[in-house]
Amino acid sequence: MARTAVLTPQKSDFPRWYQDVVAKAELADNGPVRGTMVIRPYGYSIWERMQAELDARIKDAGARNAYFPLFIPESYLQREAEHVEGFSPELAVVTHAGGKDLEEPVVVRPTSETIINEYLAKWVQSYRDLPLLLNQWGNVVRWELRPRVFLRTTEFLWQEGHTVHATQADAAAYARRILHETYAGFMTDVLAIPVVPGLKTPKERFAGATHTLTCEGMMRDGKALQMGTSHELGQNFARAFDIRYLDAEGERPYAWTTSWGASTRMVGGLIMTHGDDAGLRIPPRLAATQVVVTVVKAGEGVAPLAEALVAELRAAGIRVELDDRAEIAFGRRAIDWELKGIPVRVEIGPRDVTAGAVTVVRRIPGSKDATPVADVVRVVSEALDADQAALLAEATAWRDGHTVDVTSLYEAVEAASDGWARIPWSTVGEEGEARLAESAVTVRCLLRPDGSVPETEDEPDLVAVVGRSY
Amino acid sequence: MARTAVLTPQKSDFPRWYQDVVAKAELADNGPVRGTMVIRPYGYSIWERMQAELDARIKDAGARNAYFPLFIPESYLQREAEHVEGFSPELAVVTHAGGKDLEEPVVVRPTSETIINEYLAKWVQSYRDLPLLLNQWGNVVRWELRPRVFLRTTEFLWQEGHTVHATQADAAAYARRILHETYAGFMTDVLAIPVVPGLKTPKERFAGATHTLTCEGMMRDGKALQMGTSHELGQNFARAFDIRYLDAEGERPYAWTTSWGASTRMVGGLIMTHGDDAGLRIPPRLAATQVVVTVVKAGEGVAPLAEALVAELRAAGIRVELDDRAEIAFGRRAIDWELKGIPVRVEIGPRDVTAGAVTVVRRIPGSKDATPVADVVRVVSEALDADQAALLAEATAWRDGHTVDVTSLYEAVEAASDGWARIPWSTVGEEGEARLAESAVTVRCLLRPDGSVPETEDEPDLVAVVGRSY
Ligand SMILES: [Zn+2]
Ligand SMILES: [Zn+2]
Repeated sequence: MARTAVLTPQKSDFPRWYQDVVAKAELADNGPVRGTMVIRPYGYSIWERMQAELDARIKDAGARNAYFPLFIPESYLQREAEHVEGFSPELAVVTHAGGKDLEEPVVVRPTSETIINEYLAKWVQSYRDLPLLLNQWGNVVRWELRPRVFLRTTEFLWQEGHTVHATQADAAAYARRILHETYAGFMTDVLAIPVVPGLKTPKERFAGATHTLTCEGMMRDGKALQMGTSHELGQNFARAFDIRYLDAEGERPYAWTTSWGASTRMVGGLIMTHGDDAGLRIPPRLAATQVVVTVVKAGEGVAPLAEALVAELRAAGIRVELDDRAEIAFGRRAIDWELKGIPVRVEIGPRDVTAGAVTVVRRIPGSKDATPVADVVRVVSEALDADQAALLAEATAWRDGHTVDVTSLYEAVEAASDGWARIPWSTVGEEGEARLAESAVTVRCLLRPDGSVPETEDEPDLVAVVGRSY
Repeated sequence: MARTAVLTPQKSDFPRWYQDVVAKAELADNGPVRGTMVIRPYGYSIWERMQAELDARIKDAGARNAYFPLFIPESYLQREAEHVEGFSPELAVVTHAGGKDLEEPVVVRPTSETIINEYLAKWVQSYRDLPLLLNQWGNVVRWELRPRVFLRTTEFLWQEGHTVHATQADAAAYARRILHETYAGFMTDVLAIPVVPGLKTPKERFAGATHTLTCEGMMRDGKALQMGTSHELGQNFARAFDIRYLDAEGERPYAWTTSWGASTRMVGGLIMTHGDDAGLRIPPRLAATQVVVTVVKAGEGVAPLAEALVAELRAAGIRVELDDRAEIAFGRRAIDWELKGIPVRVEIGPRDVTAGAVTVVRRIPGSKDATPVADVVRVVSEALDADQAALLAEATAWRDGHTVDVTSLYEAVEAASDGWARIPWSTVGEEGEARLAESAVTVRCLLRPDGSVPETEDEPDLVAVVGRSY
């Protein structure tokens, strides 16, 4: 099988490689309204698996799913000053509905802080109701001037968590739990993306938050992608929406809230972290289809053997699919499975039946081995585990190999041309951020010297991780 | 434990009973924008289970999930004449976005036929691509003048399937497969709602369809609820969006399409089919929580016994929750579990530990039995199966007991005051439909004399099922 070069190589034009993968692996199309996207079945199957895995972790963190309306009265957004300022230019507004002009225009949610906090205020009565932990899966709209499929789209799918706590300490601890266990845990263990959890600078903070925590991933062009954020909102929204609770002393203090979100942007991050010049590489733990048993050519005993192997692999708990479309050229199908990044292919032809061995092709290391039929389940199981680990190790090595320690803004900008720089935060500060911005470089997050996440940007000796970003 | 009458009785005021259940069982709230709703965690857990079960059946029917944009160019809706006419008065329109007025206003999808067909036209090339079977989970907006939570809301959640076929026969067969296996199968087997599958009259047809198939459920006030519909769209959308395929003879005929949907309205149907004066009754197969093990009062050995039973039930594959909130009065908690309709409660107090027996309370038959600890898993498993069947049998008896055969429109209107009438379709016809409408009575569906679903409304001897409806 000769591999046709269907994709622009990463090195010659990374953005075009990305677009090629999105199109050729049938992940998504542009929608008709500027900046919207159509997520095609294969792309959606990746998102569905992300949802399932992340949802389980969100439930482990004690949050329950709920659903709030898409339409928000314009007045709600205006109650929290920074919040409205942050979102105004991105809003889509419905002015006409039910055959007439509306008296009060309604906003299509850019995020649900305002509407959810309005209800949390009703539901929170006493300290016994706290913490109140909610999550919502849905679509949001932020009008994008420079859209890019999965990364920056006018409409995207996401989850947004919203929680209410009795104390600042409890809210802070929960926002951090979501950052580490829910987000970084999922991204590292399932997506095999070695994200760096850190604290955003005040300039990069979410509109209305007192602290924004982030998981930053490094893509294969050295740019950063913000993969998920967890915000401490202090008492800002509690004051704006009057969320108070009766405490044990009979007083009614304002509560403390958090919010946190991760979106279809993660699909873009997956593509750009693991993809290569042959297409996607899906981590086995995420893959909706971990193994494709492929009939190379029809022939005596081929179909029964293929079906038997599918049954055996499925019985072993492996997500497996059969490709017996012998009417389509084998080479074309093989290229398609490579493009789609299916971790393992088991290829079976007429000669393999006679020989009692099949070919196990592993997408991640790129290996191809004749394997006795009796060993297939064991070999495939081991391959799936090993390749999950290999992807994470490879991405970690890439990230570390493209991160340098520097001491000046000039060096930081230099380093950002193909990776990240670590620079003392005291050397950057607000002024330095403005200077870096001239070269399209931003502080992705702040870390303590030991790599842990600081509580505030005012701690001594913090390190700023800077780079270009999506 | 004395049961407090927290709900308006069904017989005294059914609509108010419904509102009471929605509020007291914490299923949903009204949203701030007219006709929108907030689905609270318990209500959403019911929807999540419906989604999971229905999604599995949709995948069994060969359809794959995808996602299309919320925003549709106004011009798309105008391409299919009946479709635009059907939806115009209900549309919500975004005229302002990204800080300025839009050149072409965009519509918030009331359904996605138009935008999906635009893409299907690109993806369908040859007969080898057919059938192409897609499904989408998402939100849609239809501006409602008389909103009612879950039943008729400005925004609702649903799935919408969209498929393309080479022949009319294949499209018709698929629309029927979805009707029977996917919808009626799910509603009968999981929701325990004995829906009647039938054919809509031309008057009641979906805008743009050639035939609309429906599943009609009877609520406990005798009204009908349309629980799901499956439409043959003929070549109407294929012509409007130019969906053609290269056939084996090298010609490019128009394809045949279908669409089908079921929504959060099913939650309303569940409430009104099984609910009683004490609240909801959730069918065991649907219930996110099938069993609550309740600590009646703290005491020696109570907590360990409760935890052991939770572990045993869970190991037996039962969805179980522990309620050990001994600080809240037991009576209050029991009323709450009744309201929420949890199928089985296992109640444990200090005396039960000594006696080696606990109380198994079944919500559906309303029974309460002392049960030896060693028998709990078996007794509960049997109760869940028996009560699933009992709910379906009860709802079927209710439906059949409130359906009468009549021969005149006058009698049909009479019968519709607390149920359905079956009347020869030849006695009704288009004129009869108009006369029934004066009494707010409609033809819910047409059936053959043997109860099967006719192919067209022109078959001889059809029976019209008529009634009031939501
Ligand atoms: Zn700070
Ligand atoms: Zn007809």
